[in-house]
Amino acid sequence: MKLSLDPKAINDVLDGHWAEARRRGRTLAEEPSTHDDPADDLDTARAKTLDGVMMMAETGLPMTGLSPEMGGKNEHATNVAGFEETVTANPSLQIKAGVQFGLFGGAILHLGDKEQHQKWLLDAQSGRLLGSFAMTEIGHGSDVANVATTATYDEATEEFVIETPFRAATKEYIGNAARDARAAVVFAQLITKGVKHGVHAFFVPVRDEAGEPMPGVSIEDDGYKGGLKGVDNGRLAFDSVRIPRTNLLNRYGDVTADGTYSSPIESPGRRFFTMLGTLVQGRVSLDGASVVASKIALDIAVRYGLERKQFTAGDDFAETTLLDYGQHQRRLMPALAAVYASAFAHEKLLTSFEEVFAGADDSEENRALLETRAAAFKADSTWMALDVIQECREACGGAGFMAENRLVGLRADLDVYVTFEGDNTVLLQLVAKRLLGDYAKEFANLDVGGAARFIGTQAAEHTLYRTGLANAGRAISDALTPNLGDKRIRSGRLQRTLLETRLEVMVAGVAQALRPATKMPAAQAADLFNVHQHELIEMARAYVELEKWKALDEKMKEQTDADQAKAFRRLRDTYGLGLIEKHMAWHLMYGRLPMSRARQINETLNRLCKKLAANALDLVEAFGYSDVHRRATIASGVEAERQAEAADYYRRARARQDFPVDEKQLRKAAKKKAKAAAR
Amino acid sequence: MKLSLDPKAINDVLDGHWAEARRRGRTLAEEPSTHDDPADDLDTARAKTLDGVMMMAETGLPMTGLSPEMGGKNEHATNVAGFEETVTANPSLQIKAGVQFGLFGGAILHLGDKEQHQKWLLDAQSGRLLGSFAMTEIGHGSDVANVATTATYDEATEEFVIETPFRAATKEYIGNAARDARAAVVFAQLITKGVKHGVHAFFVPVRDEAGEPMPGVSIEDDGYKGGLKGVDNGRLAFDSVRIPRTNLLNRYGDVTADGTYSSPIESPGRRFFTMLGTLVQGRVSLDGASVVASKIALDIAVRYGLERKQFTAGDDFAETTLLDYGQHQRRLMPALAAVYASAFAHEKLLTSFEEVFAGADDSEENRALLETRAAAFKADSTWMALDVIQECREACGGAGFMAENRLVGLRADLDVYVTFEGDNTVLLQLVAKRLLGDYAKEFANLDVGGAARFIGTQAAEHTLYRTGLANAGRAISDALTPNLGDKRIRSGRLQRTLLETRLEVMVAGVAQALRPATKMPAAQAADLFNVHQHELIEMARAYVELEKWKALDEKMKEQTDADQAKAFRRLRDTYGLGLIEKHMAWHLMYGRLPMSRARQINETLNRLCKKLAANALDLVEAFGYSDVHRRATIASGVEAERQAEAADYYRRARARQDFPVDEKQLRKAAKKKAKAAAR
Repeated sequence: MKLSLDPKAINDVLDGHWAEARRRGRTLAEEPSTHDDPADDLDTARAKTLDGVMMMAETGLPMTGLSPEMGGKNEHATNVAGFEETVTANPSLQIKAGVQFGLFGGAILHLGDKEQHQKWLLDAQSGRLLGSFAMTEIGHGSDVANVATTATYDEATEEFVIETPFRAATKEYIGNAARDARAAVVFAQLITKGVKHGVHAFFVPVRDEAGEPMPGVSIEDDGYKGGLKGVDNGRLAFDSVRIPRTNLLNRYGDVTADGTYSSPIESPGRRFFTMLGTLVQGRVSLDGASVVASKIALDIAVRYGLERKQFTAGDDFAETTLLDYGQHQRRLMPALAAVYASAFAHEKLLTSFEEVFAGADDSEENRALLETRAAAFKADSTWMALDVIQECREACGGAGFMAENRLVGLRADLDVYVTFEGDNTVLLQLVAKRLLGDYAKEFANLDVGGAARFIGTQAAEHTLYRTGLANAGRAISDALTPNLGDKRIRSGRLQRTLLETRLEVMVAGVAQALRPATKMPAAQAADLFNVHQHELIEMARAYVELEKWKALDEKMKEQTDADQAKAFRRLRDTYGLGLIEKHMAWHLMYGRLPMSRARQINETLNRLCKKLAANALDLVEAFGYSDVHRRATIASGVEAERQAEAADYYRRARARQDFPVDEKQLRKAAKKKAKAAAR
Repeated sequence: MKLSLDPKAINDVLDGHWAEARRRGRTLAEEPSTHDDPADDLDTARAKTLDGVMMMAETGLPMTGLSPEMGGKNEHATNVAGFEETVTANPSLQIKAGVQFGLFGGAILHLGDKEQHQKWLLDAQSGRLLGSFAMTEIGHGSDVANVATTATYDEATEEFVIETPFRAATKEYIGNAARDARAAVVFAQLITKGVKHGVHAFFVPVRDEAGEPMPGVSIEDDGYKGGLKGVDNGRLAFDSVRIPRTNLLNRYGDVTADGTYSSPIESPGRRFFTMLGTLVQGRVSLDGASVVASKIALDIAVRYGLERKQFTAGDDFAETTLLDYGQHQRRLMPALAAVYASAFAHEKLLTSFEEVFAGADDSEENRALLETRAAAFKADSTWMALDVIQECREACGGAGFMAENRLVGLRADLDVYVTFEGDNTVLLQLVAKRLLGDYAKEFANLDVGGAARFIGTQAAEHTLYRTGLANAGRAISDALTPNLGDKRIRSGRLQRTLLETRLEVMVAGVAQALRPATKMPAAQAADLFNVHQHELIEMARAYVELEKWKALDEKMKEQTDADQAKAFRRLRDTYGLGLIEKHMAWHLMYGRLPMSRARQINETLNRLCKKLAANALDLVEAFGYSDVHRRATIASGVEAERQAEAADYYRRARARQDFPVDEKQLRKAAKKKAKAAAR
């Protein structure tokens, strides 16, 4: 059952194309001063985190995204991959650095012109100029197009006047704002000559040299949060704050001295989405950071599960460890499979991120795909991280709740990942809309074969729905996969077909249900949309799950070492069958999976998890982390030492003449004797 | 759709028999000094929590469980119900008070004799004598029978010698230990005359008057945890610590001066379980506390969801609130239904707790039922609380992550509830064993009709399994519920039948699968058990879910007000159909639910959630909490104020001549004009 695996070789596959950057990030994360400490108060945690940000600046990683003429390499994923690994030091560090270099610096890079790059970008990426990214407002969480802050051009002074018109327009949850930022990229409605040209980004100084708020700028501290103690989130409000005209980051929209607006993108809608699209890096990096956090949690829980033995005083030779238990395997091994799938999916995301931003393929299609995937993966991976970390924490029992074992801290910090940089439910609706759009397009341009396939699916689905004739569906499915044995349930083709069919049927179904909306008045259309909101979100999740499964399947097929390929296949099947089990009701209802096969899934998963558990240590060792990254007492070997000591005690004690006899044994012996006497 | 409900009347139903005690607990929780504060450091949080414990002592609630001759009322549930409500002030307070009065005092009450009550119990329940409950050891989390600490009787001095033989035997996670306890009830193996009589409880002083550890006692501080900052958990180890013979809490086992052991319960196994059984209060109170924490979270999230409008700058009259969204309803309303079901199930648990401990019915059957339910409900409710609080936190977006809105703090504190007082997975296996035991007993003594029923179920299940003939099962199920319309899916009988059948079939199936284990060698039997561990746990969860559903169903039937009954029915159906949807694959695979009906469940749930949302405010208002209990900025009305201000701004602005026109609108108008000119 146990395979012969080389963790180092698997690590190469996991670390992938940006291995070098990852290793640099991990080296930085070994520096003790970057590590979070639950005993730190708010000020200490923030100061330490800022020091960490400065150390990151010193690595030079934040400069790699710049053009060669500015000292960069026009490499975008390197930076992201490196940063992601700093989650192992402290998620606050990853986030605060993300705000500084990815959002603040990134906005200047992507939305500013060369002059603005010269003025601010080098200072930003070297940490000399600390900044905020002021997009979110209290009243508009995920609805950026409607932020209420205004930037009105004043021809007389050639300045923009930044204004927070009411309390709900206050910029909220802004990282770096409460303590460190000297400037902020502020998103506001650009108004000139009485016309509102939509949301644009402005460079606004918020504190003077002494750290005092600039005139007209009010700053509040968000104080304590559920985690991320080292990030100084705060609120920014502007009372007629004047900035030079040239502080408008003008790549996608500019205003001349006399107040004339111009933009290379005519449509205000497309202009807005293009601007936002350049900021996709945040979502990409949260996807990756979630994978890293999940890896660390599993690394800790698996090591503890393999070390902690459940021996009793009566039987100190029993070598059952926690991870020998069926339920423990079912808790941790599917999590391990999901993390592998997500890691490979993230690698693909990074690749298209690099293609788009380095210019190898910045076609509109590729950009759209990148944005869709970033939204989808971010949503799925951040939720996965919370689930995985929590499962690990519970699998470690009371020890899992101790701060010194890190799991609770990781979970607390990662919590907000599911609602920031786009609330997950909002992101998934975005993905759903893209899926429907692609479906409609495909439908329009489809050749006959393809159309028939879609129509076929749809018709089958519809017939089923109306008639409730499950057998019709089952017959189709059985024809598709006839006489499946146990082995065949682990067939990649079957898994793929099930995952794909589910997505296709869902998309076709929702598309059909929503079609009338196009001809309805807005309010009625909104109602119809609302009725199907839950399905839209489920559909988007089905998309991510398929994408992640495919990433793992592809990587499996690349493996040349027989045992390594086998391990990857176990991971793929555990992930795939786990998804099919999760959505089993759907597959049954839509007749895609015969009952007899469905019944085998639970047992097959039990067996797969047991097999994976046999190589669990190799598979977490392959993440490439050391004790310094884990920093969890329970994963340090102390448990094994204690248990050896205990076993030794009993061994020696039992050899003693005066070792007490158990009352239970005396009673048993007495009973036997009484019985013998009675005979 | 909206019903006319009286929150006060529903509150009476929810608060139930122990309403008075609940209100006393809530009044105490209004005291600002008891409230947790994320800014407190460890020392401050602990000191404040201790003050709160003292205030609880002053209420006299901890004395109610004592006998009348000691100034009590022999009322047990009163105390528990009152305590549960203090979760609204600070879960640390509930836990630290639980350690002091429920575990430390409770152990003296239930395991000690009258003399020992006189010596320690009044002091414990008045807070004059602070104590720990030292059961768990590092090496034995949930396996209490095998704790390694020894208490060896020394005839020469008439003392017990308490010993921690090795590091893994250190008492761990002990509440009150790190800072406040002067004494501890220590669970240790009683050894006298060379015989080990199993685990007994001993009263052991651990600190002197000055607060210094007693000679031979080592105390370590567990430091920071994932939450419960106000509870001073720590480790206790004993190096030949001598205590008088009379410090053995001797109700179920005593040692005479010459070292002779005696017990009113002959069987060491039964003796152990009887002792442990008296300590069920901890689990009972965690079940209730989880319900209270979930109520507060929902109270906050629902109020915010009703207040926060998603209007845009362009349309300030749109009055869509978050809770108008389908997905938002699907997030919060099933949680609301689960909390109602759990509240009523908890009331039943409290009732049997009172029956057993006040003596109205302390039969072995009733004790066993109490213990089974306490384990089952505690496991389900503590997990429910984590899910509900997290769903609420995410439903509030970024605001949900701010400490000032309380959700993150509640979740962090409640986290450990799922693994302490018995790890949930261990508790559920306990429940599963009881279910199998009952099944076997019933099977043995069953009359023919009953046996036929079981055999019938089993046979059907078995046939299905072997043949994969879903239709056989479906035919049965269709016969059972012919021609179900939409309404009939909401039939209580159908829901109950589905929930019951699932449990019965699972029990029968697992029983059959495990039957060979009784004749196997231990290791092989353990392997077989291990293969079915996952199913055992699922089976136990099916039991709790049915019990909770029944509690809600019964309470629904008691309602006389038509609208109130209707609201309860919506809650019951949401809870019931939610469970059926969750386990839909099972119901389909076992042919219990026809496909055509299964397909309706999602839509029916959508509709039910929408209906419940119409009365959401009434249903959370009925929890009986005030702003002081919620203490969440977002639930205080501030959001509505901000939004009114924003709407007002736009209304006034639009009336102005110089209000900027949207570029989009200009473009639209220009296009129209161009078209008109072209015609």
